[in-house]
Amino acid sequence: MAITPMSENFSKWYNDIVYKADLASQSEVRGSMIIKPYGYELWENIKSGLDYRFKETGHKNAYFPLFIPESYLQKEAEHVEGFSPELAVVTIAGGKELEEPLIVRPTSETIIMHAFSNWIQSYRDLPLLLNQWANVVRWELRTRPFLRTSEFLWQEGHTAHATQTEAEEETAQMLDVYADFAINEAAIPVIQGRKSVREKFAGAVYTTTIEAMMRDGKALQSGTSHYLGQNFAKAFDIRFLDKDQERKYVYTTSWGLSTRMVGAVIMTHGDDKGLRLPPVIAPIQIVVVPIYRKEEQRSLVMDTVDKLTAQFKAVGIRFHVDDSDQSPGYKFNDWEMRGVPIRLEIGPKDVEKNQAVLVRRDIDGRDAKSFVSQDGLVETVQNMLVDIQANLLQQATEFRDSNIVEVDTYNDFKSVVDAGQWAKVWWNENSDLEKQVKNETTATHRCYPFDLQEEGTGKNFLTGEAADQIALFSKAY
Amino acid sequence: MAITPMSENFSKWYNDIVYKADLASQSEVRGSMIIKPYGYELWENIKSGLDYRFKETGHKNAYFPLFIPESYLQKEAEHVEGFSPELAVVTIAGGKELEEPLIVRPTSETIIMHAFSNWIQSYRDLPLLLNQWANVVRWELRTRPFLRTSEFLWQEGHTAHATQTEAEEETAQMLDVYADFAINEAAIPVIQGRKSVREKFAGAVYTTTIEAMMRDGKALQSGTSHYLGQNFAKAFDIRFLDKDQERKYVYTTSWGLSTRMVGAVIMTHGDDKGLRLPPVIAPIQIVVVPIYRKEEQRSLVMDTVDKLTAQFKAVGIRFHVDDSDQSPGYKFNDWEMRGVPIRLEIGPKDVEKNQAVLVRRDIDGRDAKSFVSQDGLVETVQNMLVDIQANLLQQATEFRDSNIVEVDTYNDFKSVVDAGQWAKVWWNENSDLEKQVKNETTATHRCYPFDLQEEGTGKNFLTGEAADQIALFSKAY
Repeated sequence: MAITPMSENFSKWYNDIVYKADLASQSEVRGSMIIKPYGYELWENIKSGLDYRFKETGHKNAYFPLFIPESYLQKEAEHVEGFSPELAVVTIAGGKELEEPLIVRPTSETIIMHAFSNWIQSYRDLPLLLNQWANVVRWELRTRPFLRTSEFLWQEGHTAHATQTEAEEETAQMLDVYADFAINEAAIPVIQGRKSVREKFAGAVYTTTIEAMMRDGKALQSGTSHYLGQNFAKAFDIRFLDKDQERKYVYTTSWGLSTRMVGAVIMTHGDDKGLRLPPVIAPIQIVVVPIYRKEEQRSLVMDTVDKLTAQFKAVGIRFHVDDSDQSPGYKFNDWEMRGVPIRLEIGPKDVEKNQAVLVRRDIDGRDAKSFVSQDGLVETVQNMLVDIQANLLQQATEFRDSNIVEVDTYNDFKSVVDAGQWAKVWWNENSDLEKQVKNETTATHRCYPFDLQEEGTGKNFLTGEAADQIALFSKAY
Repeated sequence: MAITPMSENFSKWYNDIVYKADLASQSEVRGSMIIKPYGYELWENIKSGLDYRFKETGHKNAYFPLFIPESYLQKEAEHVEGFSPELAVVTIAGGKELEEPLIVRPTSETIIMHAFSNWIQSYRDLPLLLNQWANVVRWELRTRPFLRTSEFLWQEGHTAHATQTEAEEETAQMLDVYADFAINEAAIPVIQGRKSVREKFAGAVYTTTIEAMMRDGKALQSGTSHYLGQNFAKAFDIRFLDKDQERKYVYTTSWGLSTRMVGAVIMTHGDDKGLRLPPVIAPIQIVVVPIYRKEEQRSLVMDTVDKLTAQFKAVGIRFHVDDSDQSPGYKFNDWEMRGVPIRLEIGPKDVEKNQAVLVRRDIDGRDAKSFVSQDGLVETVQNMLVDIQANLLQQATEFRDSNIVEVDTYNDFKSVVDAGQWAKVWWNENSDLEKQVKNETTATHRCYPFDLQEEGTGKNFLTGEAADQIALFSKAY
């Protein structure tokens, strides 16, 4: 069950974790994967953290058709151009060739905006705040489990508003929701910013993003929130009668986060031993390994295990008891590889001494291990889970901050991005130059980070001209 | 907002409820519908009731690809024959014609069994107990919202076992899970039974079912659990090394329940005024209608509303405050139509008297209304919700029992099924005669009900011969 060390081959390390920790399984369907129970439970925990936040901010879930008539997709020119190359098309159904081919949704703006045009009549119908949990299909050439698959699971929010201000506030609010989830539940210190024109969503006025730094220094776009202006409203004729009796186009937004987040979790927290899961979203928060040599010790140990896990269950700590016939050493390695935050070991001597051994996954070496009393164990475990959650976030934040480097020449830029770091630069919006940088270095414009902007201007690292914005560039997934 | 009375036109009554209560919306995509927030929340509550039961019985969720290579589907002869006429087929992806067309899953036995054949090696891997929440597509000629749509949402369980006994026990257990959910959460007194050979799932050894009686007397198959024997194991070569060192084929089951259940809820409990929702699954359990004429009364009333709803929130009662500018009369009718179990009315005089008015949806006339103290209101409401839940089940059970009629001649059979009742008959398994009955009466074999079987034999209502099983026949959705 040993995995390739991260330092040796990051890509192989990633795949090893995905398959050996049973997060996913390869499928023979091109570009698709099977999400196995351990991976799916992680996704369910991500879902519930997001769904709660969506509902708290006034959104409701709905469900729209999987198939989109080809003609809908044509209505927004930039949108269809962006998605055309990666569409899967149903041409036969019920034994007959279809008159109009149906597109398997790559995203649902068009079909949802079509519905909005029927539903929205007056200002009373606004804002309309919907979310959908769904599968979407984008026919990708190169696929990686969780990071880029032809079919993936996600949520897509779609909202309509009476004013530009409200729609822009919604766009910002939902990016905040993503960042809040990423930081506080997935322990990923994402950076919020705005995408360049070249990297924005096809059909958006602008796209905002949360960008995460993986352990190899590459960036992973982990969620996006788009301000769509009136682009889709005009394409789908979504108008409302305002209080002033005028018919106006609505302003819309959309925002999405996908199973890619599972990849972000793996590559933000993992180490050479495997996965490390933040307790808040871990399917198993504590694994209990009973240790006994003779069969007559079994019931003694298991009685205590039952007593302790009953306490865990009562307070909602997610636990698993590994009473399989593998050796303790095998189990320790296996559960470390699977990223369970805490391991509890208990043997006959521990029972005798009313103690247990706790080993935390976020720390290496001797400090990871502690002998604790069975009295108040639930509280001890709960506190340790909180501590691990905070520590994983801190480790990731330190890693991130030590790998963002300010550069002001192209030479330095190249060294930095080649070293797997992020370049913080002064930049003027320019798609052509961005393309040049990508072609020459493979690094892309990740975002104009909101929190790193500075007053005044600085020197554009590429052109030497005065530039008015701070941008982050790096290699990316 | 008035709906067509059930007695006038049941089918129109059903559609009126679906669209006017905002459960779903028509979509221009052939045979598809949009599930609107109120309908989706009902489905979410159904999902959580089932998901909890699946996990309690040891199942885990996973996710398999949407697209199935055509060759997989061919492997089980009866299965492909059953599903061929209603398949949607992707022939183009990423701008190119595919070498092998991909089927949009109509059900996932084939792709999941293909995975099982890779995953299952030894008896240690068994039983394998998985469930998937997903969308599936079956190209239907005639569609009805929730009852029969080209795309629908469902769960499909798929399990593999070492022995026939275990697999048959699983099949029975999951039917019990469905029945337990239907009866105790959806308040639908389903009848459990086995399908005839003609009506079984394509590829199953046998199919068990929960059948519900709608208010027009028609049956609705509401969930099915299939014993698949070794049919799929042999088609996909799923073998395991048993303890005796022999390689054996596994035994598999599958079981599914879909958004059809929403249709079952509507047609089991609805009345001429509209929907009536069982409290356990109702998106809104109590709607609060503040009543005041003058604006200065508003804050007085709303202060009390806020106080009371804070109490509801604290204990998890799902409430909605309707403070819109419609008249109270309009609101009463509208929320009755939407099936909310309890309406709470409160005006300035009620505030003064420390009381509130509760109106329950399950009872007609004056008895529905009660004046209750604001002291202990939470408990009053909770008790009333329990009472409504029980009463809806009782009403539906009485309706069901008074509409199952024993018949032993074909003439009586015809009168009974034409009158919208179920015929309870003696029957010998015979697909040809079943087909004849269907052609002549439109009634179908619903099931051999487990709890209505009798010792010995009786007279087959059609042939007059001695028959060994009790069957239920009726018209059906």
